[in-house]
Amino acid sequence: MLENKYVLDPWSIIENKFDSTKMIDSESIFSLGNGKIGQRGNFEEDFSNDKTIGNYISGIYYRDKTKVGWWKKGYPEYFAKMVNCPNWNKIRISINKEILDLNKCKVLSYKRELNMKEGWCERKALVLTNSSIKIEIQSKKFISLKRVNIGAINYKIKVFDNDINIEILPCIDISTRNNDSNWNEPFLETTDSITKNNLSIVNSKVINSEFEISTFSNTIHYLNNKKIDGNYIKSDDKSLIGSKTDFILNKNDELTIFKIGGYVNSNDSEKKDFINIIDKESKNALKKGFIDLCKENAVEWNKIWRDSDVIINGDVKSQQAIRFNIFHLNQTFNGNDPSLNIGPKGFTGEKYGGVTYWDTEAYCVPFYLGTKDSIVAKNLLNQRYKQLNNAIKNAEKIGLNNGAALYPMVTVNGEECHNEWEITFEEIHRNAAIAQAIKKYINSTEDYGFLENKGIKILIAISRFWKQRVNFSKALNKYVILGVTGPNEYENNIDNNWYTNYSARWCLEYTIEQLSEIANRANVSNEFILKTNNLTTNEISSWKKIIKNMYLPFSKDLNVFIQNDGFLNKDLQPINSIPTNQRPINQNWSWDKILRSPYIKQADVLQGFYFFEDHFSKSELESNFNYYEQFTVHESSLSACIHSVLASRINNTEKAYDYYIRASRLDLDDYNKEIKQGLHITSMGGSWMSIIEGFAGVKIFENKLYLNTNIPEKWDNYSFKLNIKNRKINVLINKNETKINLLSGEKIDIMLNNQEITIYPKTIKIN
Amino acid sequence: MLENKYVLDPWSIIENKFDSTKMIDSESIFSLGNGKIGQRGNFEEDFSNDKTIGNYISGIYYRDKTKVGWWKKGYPEYFAKMVNCPNWNKIRISINKEILDLNKCKVLSYKRELNMKEGWCERKALVLTNSSIKIEIQSKKFISLKRVNIGAINYKIKVFDNDINIEILPCIDISTRNNDSNWNEPFLETTDSITKNNLSIVNSKVINSEFEISTFSNTIHYLNNKKIDGNYIKSDDKSLIGSKTDFILNKNDELTIFKIGGYVNSNDSEKKDFINIIDKESKNALKKGFIDLCKENAVEWNKIWRDSDVIINGDVKSQQAIRFNIFHLNQTFNGNDPSLNIGPKGFTGEKYGGVTYWDTEAYCVPFYLGTKDSIVAKNLLNQRYKQLNNAIKNAEKIGLNNGAALYPMVTVNGEECHNEWEITFEEIHRNAAIAQAIKKYINSTEDYGFLENKGIKILIAISRFWKQRVNFSKALNKYVILGVTGPNEYENNIDNNWYTNYSARWCLEYTIEQLSEIANRANVSNEFILKTNNLTTNEISSWKKIIKNMYLPFSKDLNVFIQNDGFLNKDLQPINSIPTNQRPINQNWSWDKILRSPYIKQADVLQGFYFFEDHFSKSELESNFNYYEQFTVHESSLSACIHSVLASRINNTEKAYDYYIRASRLDLDDYNKEIKQGLHITSMGGSWMSIIEGFAGVKIFENKLYLNTNIPEKWDNYSFKLNIKNRKINVLINKNETKINLLSGEKIDIMLNNQEITIYPKTIKIN
Repeated sequence: MLENKYVLDPWSIIENKFDSTKMIDSESIFSLGNGKIGQRGNFEEDFSNDKTIGNYISGIYYRDKTKVGWWKKGYPEYFAKMVNCPNWNKIRISINKEILDLNKCKVLSYKRELNMKEGWCERKALVLTNSSIKIEIQSKKFISLKRVNIGAINYKIKVFDNDINIEILPCIDISTRNNDSNWNEPFLETTDSITKNNLSIVNSKVINSEFEISTFSNTIHYLNNKKIDGNYIKSDDKSLIGSKTDFILNKNDELTIFKIGGYVNSNDSEKKDFINIIDKESKNALKKGFIDLCKENAVEWNKIWRDSDVIINGDVKSQQAIRFNIFHLNQTFNGNDPSLNIGPKGFTGEKYGGVTYWDTEAYCVPFYLGTKDSIVAKNLLNQRYKQLNNAIKNAEKIGLNNGAALYPMVTVNGEECHNEWEITFEEIHRNAAIAQAIKKYINSTEDYGFLENKGIKILIAISRFWKQRVNFSKALNKYVILGVTGPNEYENNIDNNWYTNYSARWCLEYTIEQLSEIANRANVSNEFILKTNNLTTNEISSWKKIIKNMYLPFSKDLNVFIQNDGFLNKDLQPINSIPTNQRPINQNWSWDKILRSPYIKQADVLQGFYFFEDHFSKSELESNFNYYEQFTVHESSLSACIHSVLASRINNTEKAYDYYIRASRLDLDDYNKEIKQGLHITSMGGSWMSIIEGFAGVKIFENKLYLNTNIPEKWDNYSFKLNIKNRKINVLINKNETKINLLSGEKIDIMLNNQEITIYPKTIKIN
Repeated sequence: MLENKYVLDPWSIIENKFDSTKMIDSESIFSLGNGKIGQRGNFEEDFSNDKTIGNYISGIYYRDKTKVGWWKKGYPEYFAKMVNCPNWNKIRISINKEILDLNKCKVLSYKRELNMKEGWCERKALVLTNSSIKIEIQSKKFISLKRVNIGAINYKIKVFDNDINIEILPCIDISTRNNDSNWNEPFLETTDSITKNNLSIVNSKVINSEFEISTFSNTIHYLNNKKIDGNYIKSDDKSLIGSKTDFILNKNDELTIFKIGGYVNSNDSEKKDFINIIDKESKNALKKGFIDLCKENAVEWNKIWRDSDVIINGDVKSQQAIRFNIFHLNQTFNGNDPSLNIGPKGFTGEKYGGVTYWDTEAYCVPFYLGTKDSIVAKNLLNQRYKQLNNAIKNAEKIGLNNGAALYPMVTVNGEECHNEWEITFEEIHRNAAIAQAIKKYINSTEDYGFLENKGIKILIAISRFWKQRVNFSKALNKYVILGVTGPNEYENNIDNNWYTNYSARWCLEYTIEQLSEIANRANVSNEFILKTNNLTTNEISSWKKIIKNMYLPFSKDLNVFIQNDGFLNKDLQPINSIPTNQRPINQNWSWDKILRSPYIKQADVLQGFYFFEDHFSKSELESNFNYYEQFTVHESSLSACIHSVLASRINNTEKAYDYYIRASRLDLDDYNKEIKQGLHITSMGGSWMSIIEGFAGVKIFENKLYLNTNIPEKWDNYSFKLNIKNRKINVLINKNETKINLLSGEKIDIMLNNQEITIYPKTIKIN
């Protein structure tokens, strides 16, 4: 069992031990953001131990070089990476000429709290400096949900002796750089900077791009809560843009630096307007003051929690975890800007570049569909629709034609960014996740307009991809899909990945079905709809031939689908045969050893059982779950949640609970020993799925809501809100009772199955 | 049919058309070297069209960064790459202040000849400059076989008008850089330079290494063959280190620049001695004069040809090609320095880094064994023995232990340099090629001392590798080898590559057999030898179990071995179904499309038939040859030669001839459209094999020489010398007669099988 590094609390993450070497881990946990800008939980003052200073703006990226020694035709020209921006948070503090640095102080007491309910982070420390001066610092900060370009910090320094010289330098640190540059190059260049008393502005340009950003910071100083002006001396440190001010403090004096700062960027406004926007934003914010700004922000968070909170009673560990996940999902993406998407690490780290993966459709869309207005999920799908032409070009790169589309594995604008052939060219199941998201969106919203105008075009292009990507094996007398990587990336370039083959077949089926439904709804012939969509009956026939004859590897002996050809030739030792000092295997084994092992990174066959649960019997699910679970190492953040959902579906609530804890506390408890790289944002949607789709068993199909509720032993009850067909319902699941309230006056068919209790629509109390 | 770009001539490669855009191709063809230093066939004067200036020193390399965005555990820290050194060949010529540049002149006549018999290259051009001044230039040069640090150039300029101002700047160009830097970094830095009249020296250091080199050049000038001194004005161009001299020439005057130059390096001598070595070398060479130096060099080449020439009468195309191959093999490596090896492109290009691949053992060792003293092949094997510990460490990286060794795919000192997992970790058949080379060396030399002291240790370590790399498949009830890349690199991460499985089994068999032979020869028990070699009978038993139960995929229906699991599920269209504009596929198809196609880059199953011919019947060979040939695109330079040898072995001499032409003229006729990158040096050994092991059918086994001679229709006869068991024999194969002369007085059993004629030892005439 992993120890809890942070205090268990229903609404806060609290760190009360100061371990200088582990602050880099906590920087990830205490990250702040508002969907547009975000930052790691860095200390404002200097800190000389391991750290990753990180400040990012969604949609601002550098085209990093992807060239390696051995190039393959069709590789992308660039990898889009979020730019690590100048750090507006920086405040250098000197105490009697000694730079304050907690790594060099004796820390007498320390506490940091991330308050998720109100969206702020506060840090208090009582320290003895190297020269034995005792001071207390207290820093509270947040990134504003309402004023999307800014954050605010209230930084207090209290002294306990007389005649202490305090020099402060609230500034913008322009020495920050991306850590994940492939070629060790800077991503950003400073074009100019201004310092005028307490205002600093740094203009920068993303190298080899049109992106321009302006970083600003502005401060007001208070001595014992009274505003004071000081002498402003321009910083002589070239990388710290700001003004120094000197103070002499006496015993119990408290100096407060109220700092606001942030970014404006060329995606939102023209460069010539930057200065005016900064002027207005900063004046308004400073005028409002820290306390009121913080309150205003808490109001916004309150609105978010009203719709998306999951309340768990009886188990603070579970409660804290789900709120941590929901909090960070909302910090990363809120759907307000239709051009943005969700990077796997949000604003908490640079790995994966901060751009779009299949995670969005497979793990995040359900959460946003369930907790936000449907426009949010729609915007995410609209983005894929806008990128359809690029996906068609992408498929042409691998030799396909006739409008076949292969969505990129990693993208910012529809162009592929990833350059490992086994992923870029072969992890093609991602296409199916997009079709799944369309299905979920349509099922949940009945937005047939989207389907007819956009969704069906995506589905057709994806189906054309599969049609051309299969080939007929004479040896098997079946259609096969060769050379793929499935969701389990611990197998590469394999043949007949069951999940991929099954998903491909389903895409063809679903597209044909939706074409037919469109015809039905419009009361026209199928042929008419085909023609409208530039399809022929021959094309549909060829799809049907594939549907009928797709090869789906199955073992009669084991009564399971086989993950891929050759899986059964492996040395099939269950995971408990791996010495614990060799876990996680991806940090201990060479790639070939991983590949030829039977160990599964994340749900693969079981990912299919998640998406296609209704195609299989419970006993089929049980058989496959039991077989594959023994080989699954869950070294992807996307694994535990699917296992939790499926364990719930076979009513193994204890196991579902263990997986839920693993999924939801992955970062808090650092299961994979990599938390310093950032949080696993996209998998956080999976924690929500573990509860809503898992324990509560929510499924939406036609006009019915199916529930199959379970409740973990430790929980007294749990409740959540859910958007369904533009209605908002409240679900409370208690040990012996399930209450569902429709918030609007409308009706919905609800099928509830828990311990053989079935509640029909008429028994529902309307609020 | 490809056109012959160069004039057909038995001893020379002649270019008589000047196509300014194609000079970069010819630079590769006209490369010069002496096994230690080498250079591409660059023009001495300025040239403003496509070019790759290249000068290299064997054993001097840069540790290039290998990092890419996605790192895998066990990847190498560096890729060793030959350093592109300062160019001592450079001579800037200005004619009435206009820099001579053939790309900017009107070329009235042009001829370049590489004389392979004597080892020199000469170029003549009559040109009109931009300002309509007619001049003739003539440049003759060579790299000295005897004076291994130097080359010499005789550069003549003739004018046809009076009062022509000629400014010459014979210099060292330090602006040269490697083209294949992964991170676009320089590999070399200049530490200092000296120019003193006609002598220039540039000292450089390979960045992040201990390698230091000193480049030098020195000149004597002649006017109408009379030595003249001039005024030496130090070059003001920072990248051209040398002195300018001015001349006024009149009608028919001829100015000659006799330039010598080259490199000394820290592998050979201490830095403090560089200056003295340069002084001595350059004085001696200048004193001897160009003509005598050139003669001296021709004598050395004469010695090489005496032992290694293959004479083909009746077909100048074949004759020119084999000499071109033998010439470049000798330019690249001569075995004089036991620390050097053979890079796939020699000194003719930077691709592959100029370091060691399995090519050395599989394609070059037979040539050097056959044409050089056996110490040359022995030194190559000694290198692998010295690197055994590194190979053991390399196997540990992929989780093996107990002294298992995995030789690197690419190496300079035994450490792996390659960082594609599918090659680095998975193209493990390379281990077997080393065992094959040991077998060939022992068969050819009977050097049992090497076997007992070194060879057996390599064989045991390789066997231990295979023992641990197999796993038992319950499904097949056989041992399998999963996740490999075979010689056909157009399949990656496949299971049960027949060639790999078969070779692995053979390594185990051969090691056991040799342990037993060692015991026999020493007249001790097997157990004693096992103990001596730190082996147990249990270990040998486990090897025997694998030998007995290795899975070797075979199709009864097709009567062929199956290249690997899943091969028969492919879309098995023969290569003539590929549109010609899509060939070569590796320049037109994305990697996944190549991988899932049935197309084979180079002999794979057939590579096994080449190594293990005596294990199979002729009809088995025929069946497999016919099946796999239809899918083979020969996009590796190592393919055609193997197909030629095997076609000879099934007596399809016509086909063998076609493949021989393709193998031997690959570069001259630029089959793969990539000649500008450099020549395919290691495959040149394969051309020699096509004749000696193919047409002549030479095989050495125990104390017998087997011949199975064929002769292509176009050839009148062919002859060659061969080292066998430290004897030198002469073989002449005529249409109806085969003559074999033993050069020494000793006897050897010779089994000749050609059109049912058998000649027994007694009929051999001793010379």
